[in-house]
Formats: sequence, structure tokens, C-alpha cells
Amino acid sequence: MASSRHIFQAPKGMRDFFPEDMAIRHHLEQAWRSASIRHGFDEINGPTFEHLELYTIKSGDGIVSELFSFQRSGGQTDYALRAEFTPTLARMVAAKGRSLTVPTKWFAIPDLFRAERPQKGRLREHRQWNVDILGVAGPEADAEVIAVAVAALRGLGLGPEDIRVRISHRGAAASMLAALGVPEDRMTEAFGLIDKREKLPSEVFTEQAAALGLQASGVAKLDEMTGSRISGDQPPASIAKTHGLPVESVAELDALASELDKRGLLPFCDWDLGIVRGLAYYTGTVWEIHDARGAFRAIAGGGRYDGLVEMFEGPSTPACGFGMGDVVLALLLADRGLLDGDVSLCPRPDVFVLSSGHDQAEDLLVPLSTGLRDIGLHVRHTWKATRNIGKQFKEAASCRARIAVVLGEEVGRGMVSVKDLDAAEQFDVSLGDLSTWITRRLAGGVERA
Amino acid sequence: MASSRHIFQAPKGMRDFFPEDMAIRHHLEQAWRSASIRHGFDEINGPTFEHLELYTIKSGDGIVSELFSFQRSGGQTDYALRAEFTPTLARMVAAKGRSLTVPTKWFAIPDLFRAERPQKGRLREHRQWNVDILGVAGPEADAEVIAVAVAALRGLGLGPEDIRVRISHRGAAASMLAALGVPEDRMTEAFGLIDKREKLPSEVFTEQAAALGLQASGVAKLDEMTGSRISGDQPPASIAKTHGLPVESVAELDALASELDKRGLLPFCDWDLGIVRGLAYYTGTVWEIHDARGAFRAIAGGGRYDGLVEMFEGPSTPACGFGMGDVVLALLLADRGLLDGDVSLCPRPDVFVLSSGHDQAEDLLVPLSTGLRDIGLHVRHTWKATRNIGKQFKEAASCRARIAVVLGEEVGRGMVSVKDLDAAEQFDVSLGDLSTWITRRLAGGVERA
Repeated sequence: MASSRHIFQAPKGMRDFFPEDMAIRHHLEQAWRSASIRHGFDEINGPTFEHLELYTIKSGDGIVSELFSFQRSGGQTDYALRAEFTPTLARMVAAKGRSLTVPTKWFAIPDLFRAERPQKGRLREHRQWNVDILGVAGPEADAEVIAVAVAALRGLGLGPEDIRVRISHRGAAASMLAALGVPEDRMTEAFGLIDKREKLPSEVFTEQAAALGLQASGVAKLDEMTGSRISGDQPPASIAKTHGLPVESVAELDALASELDKRGLLPFCDWDLGIVRGLAYYTGTVWEIHDARGAFRAIAGGGRYDGLVEMFEGPSTPACGFGMGDVVLALLLADRGLLDGDVSLCPRPDVFVLSSGHDQAEDLLVPLSTGLRDIGLHVRHTWKATRNIGKQFKEAASCRARIAVVLGEEVGRGMVSVKDLDAAEQFDVSLGDLSTWITRRLAGGVERA
Repeated sequence: MASSRHIFQAPKGMRDFFPEDMAIRHHLEQAWRSASIRHGFDEINGPTFEHLELYTIKSGDGIVSELFSFQRSGGQTDYALRAEFTPTLARMVAAKGRSLTVPTKWFAIPDLFRAERPQKGRLREHRQWNVDILGVAGPEADAEVIAVAVAALRGLGLGPEDIRVRISHRGAAASMLAALGVPEDRMTEAFGLIDKREKLPSEVFTEQAAALGLQASGVAKLDEMTGSRISGDQPPASIAKTHGLPVESVAELDALASELDKRGLLPFCDWDLGIVRGLAYYTGTVWEIHDARGAFRAIAGGGRYDGLVEMFEGPSTPACGFGMGDVVLALLLADRGLLDGDVSLCPRPDVFVLSSGHDQAEDLLVPLSTGLRDIGLHVRHTWKATRNIGKQFKEAASCRARIAVVLGEEVGRGMVSVKDLDAAEQFDVSLGDLSTWITRRLAGGVERA
């Protein structure tokens, strides 16, 4: 059956999550969820597939080839696997209309899909954390969503020497492009070109820039400006001045700087005219988080999108937010030695119950384990036929159990032998006291039996 | 734009999860995950879509109309949204082959999809908890997965008066059908008919039973046997004897009864010849969990499937497990008054910070909130322009914050006023002591400032 061999693998660009992979996924999600909740965001989610038109209404039919789309067998309606979360978010906000509390602070952790050739850091299915504030026009909202992103990354062990929040503004980018002669009606196209410039061969970039009306000197100037970055503790106005851009084009970034400062975030930030974001719907601040060495794709991207909810027939709603995927983030953490890639992120058993094989011990093995599970403990025991105590201790160690309970002959006298495997200390405990003893020991108490 | 109105809703049979809905989803998942981990199961997951053939190889092409299937635009490969998790599981087990630890105890919480007309309790997308033990042929594995299912349901507040584990065996069902004259090669078909009998009009059931070779008297007898159920504390053999079936056909259930008893589960169980499960791959024990009144669809279904891993070219592997979806379970919990349907399942803020509007208070609002978030607390403050303290206290109460910190004039003297909103007690605390004070108070300590 060699011809069907491929069906025994996950489809291209899709992932199987074995326990160690799942532990990493939980580790990331835990950091994401914790940062979101600490900052007062409520979790939402939506369907895994949407009406195809939800994507085409915003991006045009050109987007269809990047989507996995389908109909129900014999059906008429076009669906597409969710490619990004923002259209779902805008739809949900629009559906609630004016009944929503303002501001609406929401986060979501959906699976997203892209019908592309898989590349390093970019798979066909990935999980993406989305954080958004709707209903606040001021820079305090932009600063707050950046704070949430940075809090999660700090929670994962990354500091300002590992990650940089690179911030710009669509107004600054438009100013820059206008100064170089790009006409107003080709701005969106020009943003797209700048966004992908690092991935294009330079001759392709030059050619496409020329098609937008830039001279060779303009291309060089664009290269210089988009390659220009200053650290967050300097005023954004200075980068505008350097390049002869109007200071007003970065006025909103000055206000943002002050809000970032209140949250202690400036050491993580750079002002960077090379950031524009590819998506058409951004209207103001735009930002990305990159690894400091620039070795990976962007870890997160976001910005302000004040027009989007209205596009979905909701009330006019200022909004900003970001998305952060799991794939690049896991690559970066592994690169920094912050993911062990072994079982150490898997839940540790509280108790491993061993049996000597004596009748009374055997009779007690399952009921005792059941009782300890009923009070909330993570309990394992061997499933092998062997009753060799040494082998059972090995099994207990390999799953990293904290406490071993040995059921032996002394069960007949109502006693068991208990070993704290971390402390390598052993005790005799009566069966009647066992659950209390274990609970206290796990809580850090050093009971003597 | 009335014609595009439908795109502003979730597709038919798909769900939007607003914060209250999401809190319910987390409540169920938390019970599922906790029961799984306590019993020593490791979490896995797989891709949201698989190769279409992964489903047709097992079920034939007839399954295709029940799947959402598609190709990548311009591609050649057929994919289908994951309809059940077991094929993915079998594929993952087969891929690891003999390198897996035996037994393999795995659980997963995937989203699954059905291209059917949505019905009460049956949607096009749902989340399903799957728990499986691979590598154990004996009834201790069947009992253990039943124990996990019951532990989760008990964790959600359901007792033996709410839910019943209805257990049978494919051997007993085959015995019963053979006695009625169903030929060996039509057993799978007959299992399918019994499985759906409660949903079929009786004349359709009679007609289809006749097509399997049953006389009118046989149909009546089948009805009687499949409608027959005895409580778990009675021996399974007695139900066989009542209907003149060979006692050997329930011998494995006798062994299962003893394993269930060790785990204290018999009060939750019934022996029920009406349970066969519709899926073709079950080979032994089969069981479903229903609400005791029979008002809803099955809450969970599972059994033994010893031949499946081999079908996916893995080593011969005895296996058993079950699936439990979120839709029927949530309906039952709501019916029993065990889901509040309001915000009470949403995370409670630890702290709500209020500002009187004085300059020093305003300057402190965000840095103080940031500092408390940095030590792991869930902190909110008003985003409204008002600095009316009464209105801010209302906001704190409506999000059910535990502690209110009021920043007023006394901030100038390094002091804040703190209110424990649950205890309705108020304290003056110095800014330097604040985070320690709050941490202790939340941990249950009754600090006096």
C-alpha cells in the first residue's frame, strides 16, 4: 500500500502534537492567557471556518487562492477556513453593536489556516494569540496591547536583549512615500511593497518601486529610511527630523511614547520607519515584534484599525490589537534555550503507587489510587506485570513523580512506606493518615510520620 | 447590502463564543483536563484537517457526503476537516510503532466537524474530549477510561442520579442478533440499525430489521432485548440468562464489573443490551453515557477497538477509549442548574484601581496597575473619563473585583485606601506595603494595616 503511505502522515504544513509538543503548546498558551487576564481582557473565540465572503469583502477576490475554501457536498454556500481572526472579531463586535461595554477588551487563541507552500516559521495551520481593544481612540490603548504582548514574552523568559518592539505609524509611512513621489491612490500598494522588502531580491524591489513612480534615487532614499531605526528612549520626532519628514507625521508616536513609558516598556521598543504592515486595514500606529538579531520572521504584528468594524456594518469604532503565532515564537524560545524539548514541561505526577505483589497490596493498588485521584491528585502506577520494586521506582522516576507510595507486606498492619522522591527521604505512614500526609507534603510541609 | 447580511453571522451550525460562552467552554475543558491528568493521561492533538483518505480507508466512500472536504486551489490532494479523532490517533500511534511506551495513555481535546443539518445537541463544529488506552487487552483499561469519564462529570457536579453509564459488549449483541437469525456477514449493518433505533419511526425500524432477515416476532424480541437494562450492581450474566443468551457472551462484562467495582463506579453503571455503537471498528466492550432521564442525546460513547491501529499499518495493538462532546454536556448541565449562564465562571479581577482624579493619583494609576500585574495579579481600572468614585466602585462590583485600591489625595503622603469588596472591610495601607498586603489578603490572610 505504498501509494496510500502519505495518508499515515499529517498533511503537508500541518502538525501532530505528541505529549512533548503539546506541553510546549500549553506553555505558550499559558503565558498568553495569563498576560491577557492580568491586563483585564476577556477571552472569546469563533468558528473554525467562516463564510468565504467574510474575507473577500475586505480583501477582494485575490485572497481566495490563499484560502482553503469549500462547499458542503451538494450545498451552495462558500466557506473558508479562518485565515486570520480580525474579520471574525469585527463581525462579532458589529453583531453586538452598541450593546457592548466600551471599551471592549478581548483576546482569542484561534487556529488559523493558509493555503501556501509551508516555509520555516510559516505553516498551513498555526495557533495565533489575538489581543484587541475596541472603543478607545487614544494611544493608551495601543500602549496597553503592546504591554500585554511584552508581558507574555517576558513570562516566557525573553528580555529586551532578545526581542524588540519595532513601532511606526501609517501617517509617517505615507509622509515618507509622498515625499518620494508616490501618488495618494497607490499608498496601500506601496505599504505592501515596503512590508515585504526584506523578502524580495533587490532588483525585484527596485522594479516594483519604479512601477510606483520612484526614481533610482528615490529607491535608495526609501531603502535608507526604511532601514532606519532608533531606540525607544529617543523621541520619535528625531527620526522624522533626520529624514526631513514633517514632525506632525509622528506626533501620535510621541503621545504613544509617553504611554509606553508609564508602563516601563521603552527599553523594549524601537522607532522604525521600516514597519508598515501588509494588511490594508491599518489606519495609524503599526508595530511588529522581532527577535533582536533579526534571524526569524516577525513574532507578532499589530496596529490601529479604526475603520474595520464599520466595514462590517457595525458602529464606527476605534480599535487596535495584534496577533502572535505559535510557530516563530517556539523557534525563538528553542534558539534561546528556553524550551527544553523534553518532558520537563509535562505535568508531574504527585504520586506513583508501587505494589510488592502481596495479595493485600494488590487489592489496595487501584482503590488507593482512586481515592487519591478523587481528592485531586495526579496518580500513576505501573501497568506492567512486573512487581519488581526497583523497576517500579525506575518508572516513577522516569515520569518525574514527586512521591512514591510502596504497598508491601506492612499493608496488613495498616502501614505503607512513602518516599519523597525529590528530597530522597523515606517515611512510614499509616493508611488512615496517608492522604493528609501527602497533601501536606506536596504543599511544602515537612511532616514526620 | 441585505444580500450579504448572512456573512455577518457565524455559518449555520457554527458558534461564536462571547466571554460568557468561553467561560463555559473553559469550565468543561478544565473538568476534562483535570480528570485526564489525575489519571495519568498525556495530552496530544493533531491537525484540524487530514487527508480525505484517512476517513475513507476505514469507512468507505459513503462517508464523504458527511465530511467537509476540499483541495488547495490548484492542488491535487483531497483533504477533509477532522470528523472524529480516532483515525488521527490511530495514525499517530502507527507512526510511532513499537517505540511507544506501553501502555500509551493519551487524551485530546480537538474540534470536530460534520457536514450535516444541525440539530439540537448536534452542531457542525463541536469540541470533543477523547481518552484512550493503547496496549492493554484486559478490562482494567476499559474500567480506567470509564473512570476518567465519570470523574470529569462528577467534577462538574453530576451524580449517579443524573448520569448513567450504559454498558454492553459487541459479543453479546452478536449473540442476540445471531439468535434472531441475522447472518454473520450482516452483523455490522445490524449494529448500525440497533444504534439508531430510538431515532427511527417504528415502521422504518421494522422494515429495515425485516431486510436483515428478521420475522415480525424477531423484531418484537429484538425490541424487548435492546430495551432491557439492569443496574450495575447486578451481575451481567443475569441479563444474558433472562434473554436466553449464552453466558459466555457477557463473560468479559463480568470481568469488567469487578474492575469497575474496585474504582467505586458500579453505582453509575447499567448493563444495557441496547448499546452497540454505530461505528464499525468496535470489537468488544461498548458503552455510552446518557442523562438518567433520557432527555438528551448520548453525552459520551466509547468502547474497545482492538483492530484499528493495525488497519493504519501499525503493530497489532489492543485499544479502548471514548469521546465526549461539549454540546450535549452543556445542555445537560444547564438543565440541572449547574451552569449559571452569566459571568460567574469568568475570571475575577484581583484588584480594581480607582482614581480620585487628583494629579498624583492620575500619575500613579497606570504604573501602580502595571506593577501589580507584573507580580501576577489580575488588575483592572476604569477606561471612562469619569473620576466619580461611586461610579468606579460600581464598575469594580460589576466585574466582581475582590479588592479595590482607591488612589486619592493621600497618595501625596504615600498612603492609599484599600477595600476588601467581598468582606466589605476598608483599610489604609502605605504604598510601600501595598503589593505584599494584597498578596496576603488574597491568600486568605487577614492583614490589618
